[in-house]
Order: sequence, then structure tokens, then C-alpha cells
Amino acid sequence: MGFVNLLINIFNYIGIMAFAASGAFKAYEKDLDILGGVVLGSSVALAGGIIRDILIGVFPPTNIVYLPYPIMAIIASLMAYVFYPCISRYRNALMYADAIGLGTFSAVGAEIAAEHGLNILGVILMAAVTATGGGVVRDVLAGEIPTIFRRDIYATVAVLGGIIYLVFRSLLGSETAVFATAIIIIITRFVIIMKGLDKAYVTVHL
Amino acid sequence: MGFVNLLINIFNYIGIMAFAASGAFKAYEKDLDILGGVVLGSSVALAGGIIRDILIGVFPPTNIVYLPYPIMAIIASLMAYVFYPCISRYRNALMYADAIGLGTFSAVGAEIAAEHGLNILGVILMAAVTATGGGVVRDVLAGEIPTIFRRDIYATVAVLGGIIYLVFRSLLGSETAVFATAIIIIITRFVIIMKGLDKAYVTVHL
Amino acid sequence: MGFVNLLINIFNYIGIMAFAASGAFKAYEKDLDILGGVVLGSSVALAGGIIRDILIGVFPPTNIVYLPYPIMAIIASLMAYVFYPCISRYRNALMYADAIGLGTFSAVGAEIAAEHGLNILGVILMAAVTATGGGVVRDVLAGEIPTIFRRDIYATVAVLGGIIYLVFRSLLGSETAVFATAIIIIITRFVIIMKGLDKAYVTVHL
Repeated sequence: MGFVNLLINIFNYIGIMAFAASGAFKAYEKDLDILGGVVLGSSVALAGGIIRDILIGVFPPTNIVYLPYPIMAIIASLMAYVFYPCISRYRNALMYADAIGLGTFSAVGAEIAAEHGLNILGVILMAAVTATGGGVVRDVLAGEIPTIFRRDIYATVAVLGGIIYLVFRSLLGSETAVFATAIIIIITRFVIIMKGLDKAYVTVHL
Repeated sequence: MGFVNLLINIFNYIGIMAFAASGAFKAYEKDLDILGGVVLGSSVALAGGIIRDILIGVFPPTNIVYLPYPIMAIIASLMAYVFYPCISRYRNALMYADAIGLGTFSAVGAEIAAEHGLNILGVILMAAVTATGGGVVRDVLAGEIPTIFRRDIYATVAVLGGIIYLVFRSLLGSETAVFATAIIIIITRFVIIMKGLDKAYVTVHL
Repeated sequence: MGFVNLLINIFNYIGIMAFAASGAFKAYEKDLDILGGVVLGSSVALAGGIIRDILIGVFPPTNIVYLPYPIMAIIASLMAYVFYPCISRYRNALMYADAIGLGTFSAVGAEIAAEHGLNILGVILMAAVTATGGGVVRDVLAGEIPTIFRRDIYATVAVLGGIIYLVFRSLLGSETAVFATAIIIIITRFVIIMKGLDKAYVTVHL
């Protein structure tokens, strides 16, 4: 299953970059300085996984000590902040990258929770926290009510990711479950975005 | 002391329901969707205990893995959000339920801190965090300055709970201390509410 | 090196007092009650270290269980809130005390992270979190976008503290590194304040 792991890894980095960009954009639009852009961007990219690790009891959190993740988050935030005028035109493309992050973070979060022996509700919650925690931190730091609380088929999909993971895990084992969950959630978000079912997200989130 | 434990347990669930309702109401009034109602409601009900467990070092936090608590919080949030027009009329009744939660959470928080060997200040702080942490998270997520910071005999009572617990614990042991603390704080809040000493709370908090 | 340790200790308490005062002032200006003043003040003084300890996995956090720290934070918050009309005139003096806190917290945070085996990025991050986390919590609880995100040579200096610590540690060992880092950051901030390079900080932060 080397190929599956590679794909999940690539998806994970796409997610980190897309999440980081959404935070850096928010910082730019709120007239924060470049350090604010890096902090907000890195928060969206990393905070979900950090909160998950704290709740599960993994110290220090992987998103801090596994260097490729924070470094990627910092670089992506910097680039998104500096090249805001160019990149922000491609919000539609970023929404698809964000969907890849949502699906992957949700699936990976569910798996880590399951491997640490959490119960069903814990696994679903950790899927949601991993995928949406960063966005909540971003909005709170920017002085806004978190977008995921507003009408929006986003957090619901992250919760769905946890449930799908649990079903597949019991049928096909952990590795297949991660992959299948990520793919299903990503496709679901793609359809939602393409069909325009998620207007609130389009206008508010990115 | 089976009866005492049963009573504390019942009080605990009343508190979870009352706290969850206050979060779901806030979500409804802020025009959040039903998922926002469940998240905000569950946060008020569970976040105080989760923050306490994180600070003490209990992983994963009891409020996540002991299923009856999160399930009760989710159900109560759902009900309070869906039946807002009916239930919100009974805010006075809910204030008494909230007082039961405040007293019980404060007493239980103090006990858990004491059993984990925290010092006097730590026990008092954990009593306050357990009882008021959820409300702070609710207000921050709703984009408001936490109610407990505004003139209001609420957080003070939670702090008082920690002190009372410590006094009774040294005199009569842990179990009696929990029960006595909860009862004293609940009666204190009942009197404050009935005498109208807590106008800020009446108008702002629920 | 007893004298160095003593100096770092004194600097640490000056920092706790200055940070606590900035939180209590914010509470006073936001029309919060005295309990709000103590909570906000203590948060600025202690939250950075608490967040650092949670991320590293030190439970319960030192800032809760090592009594002199929370007691000093509570007393300083109380005094700053009660004597606001007198003390707030001396904001310039407080800015220098705050600079002493920034340098010391940054250096101590870096050292604790290094001693717990965090990598380079983790050490720098913990320096920044220890020194600026309290201020972020203060601003979020007060319903504002954190000051450190606005144009301001403040968080940058905390990050710099982590880097300086790492360089000195590899050359001269841990104890010297803490002292040198604190002194360099404090002097840097003093110069920034005296030269007026940090207007945003002067007007917004305190």
C-alpha cells in the first residue's frame, strides 16, 4: 500500500498549503502584518492537529515536532501573504485544495484517535476537530464568529468523515479506511463546490 | 453514601443540560445553524471539564470519553436549539438548573483537582475553571467578551465553591465535601437569583 | 552562577507584574469588574507559560502549581485594577517592565523547550508562545484582534529570543544562554521603545 500512503501524504501537504493560505489571506484582508499572516496561516494549517493531539494526550503535538509540517505551513503562509494580489484571484482553485485538506485531515484525525483507543464518539469528534479546529482558531483570532458555525456544508462533512472512517475500518482495516474516507469526503466537497450548494462557504470562508 | 453519589450524578446531568441549553440558545440568537447550536451547546456543557482535565493532565478528558456526558450534551443542545421558541420562555427555570450545574461542576472540579494532588490555589482554580470554562468558550466563540467578566455574582461563587470544598474536605473527607459544597453553592445561587442580586446575569447570561 | 539565577528570577517577577498590569488595565478600560481584572491580569501573566507547558506535556503547568507565580500575578492584577487611576499614568515605565518580561519569558520558554528535547523550530515557537501567549489570550478574551498581529516589533523580538538562545546554548551552555538571551532581548526592546520605533505598541498594547 505504498502508493496509498504516498497519496495521503501528498493530500496532507496540499491541505496544509490550502489551509495556510486561507489564514494568510484573512490576515492580509484584516490589515495584519506579515508576522500575523504567518501566525494565522500556520494556525489554520496546524491548530486542528495540535488540539487533537492535546485532547488525545500526544506530547509534544506532531504538528510542532515533525518539522516538515510546520515548515510547509510557514512557507505556504509567507507565500500566500506576499503574493496575495496574485494568488487570491485563484480562490476557486484554492477551494478544491481546501477540500482535499478537509477530507485528508478528517480521515487522518479519525485514524489517530482510533489508534489511541478512543471510542466511537471520540473518533468522530477528533475527525471534526482535526479538520475544522484550525479554521475556528483563525476566525477567533481574527475577531469573528467561526465560519463553520454559519450555514455551511463544511463541518458536517468533517463529522461525516469520522463516521465513514469507522464503518470502513470495521470492514476493511485502518489503512484502507483512511484512504476511502479521504477520497469520499474530497469528492463530496468537490460536488458541493461545483454544484454551488455551499454559497456561504464560497463567499465567507476563503 | 450511595444516595449522595446518586444525587451528585443527577445534579451533574441537570447542569450539563442547563449549560448546553445556554449555548444552544446563544447559537440560535446569533443566527447560527443547527450544527453551530450543537457545538456551542456541547462546548458550554463540556469545555470546563475538558480544560480542567488538560491542565491536570487527564488524557483523553473524561468529558470526551465517558460517553453519557457528551451524548447528554449533544441531545440537550439539539433539543434546546430546535425547541428554542418554546423553551426560551422558561429562562427563569433554566437559571435554577444552571445554578445546580454551577454548584455541582465547581464541587466536582475541586475534588478531581484535590485527588490529583494539586495545591490549594490549584483546587480553587480548577473549581472555577470547571464551572465557568464552558461559558467563557461559548462567549469567545460567539464573538463576545465573556459574561463572567462583567459585573455578576457568578464566577465569584465558583471560586467560593473551591474554598468551601477545601474546608469541608479537611474536616469531613472528600465525599461529604463534594456534596456539601454543591448544596451550599446551589442554595447561594438560588438566593441570589430569587433576591434579584444578579441582574447582569439575569439579562445577559441566559 | 547564583547571581545570574537570582537576576533571571527577579526579571521573571517583574515580567509577571508588568504583564498582569497590562491585563488588569485592559479589564478596567473595558469596564469589567474586579474579578475580570484579576482573571485578565493573571491570564496575561501566566497563560503563555501554561500554553507552553501544555504543548510540551508538563502537567500540571508550573504557572498553576508553583505558588509564587500565580500569587504574584493575582496580587499585581488586583493592585493594577484598584489603583488604575494612579498607575496607568506610568505607562512608559510599565513598557520597560513589559520589555523585561518579554525578554525573560522568551529566554526561559526557549530553555524549558530545549530541556524537554524539542527541535529547533519547537524551541523558537515555545520562546514566542511563552512571551506572547498571555497577550493573545488577553486580547481574545477582551474581544479584540491580538495586538501582536498588528504592525509591531514585539512578537518578532520574541521569536528572535528563541533563535538567540539556540545560538548561545550551542556555544556557551544553557545557563549562560538564558541570561544572554534575556539581556539582549530586553536591551533590544528598550532601544525600540526609546527610539519610538514601535508606535503601534505604544498606543495599542498598554
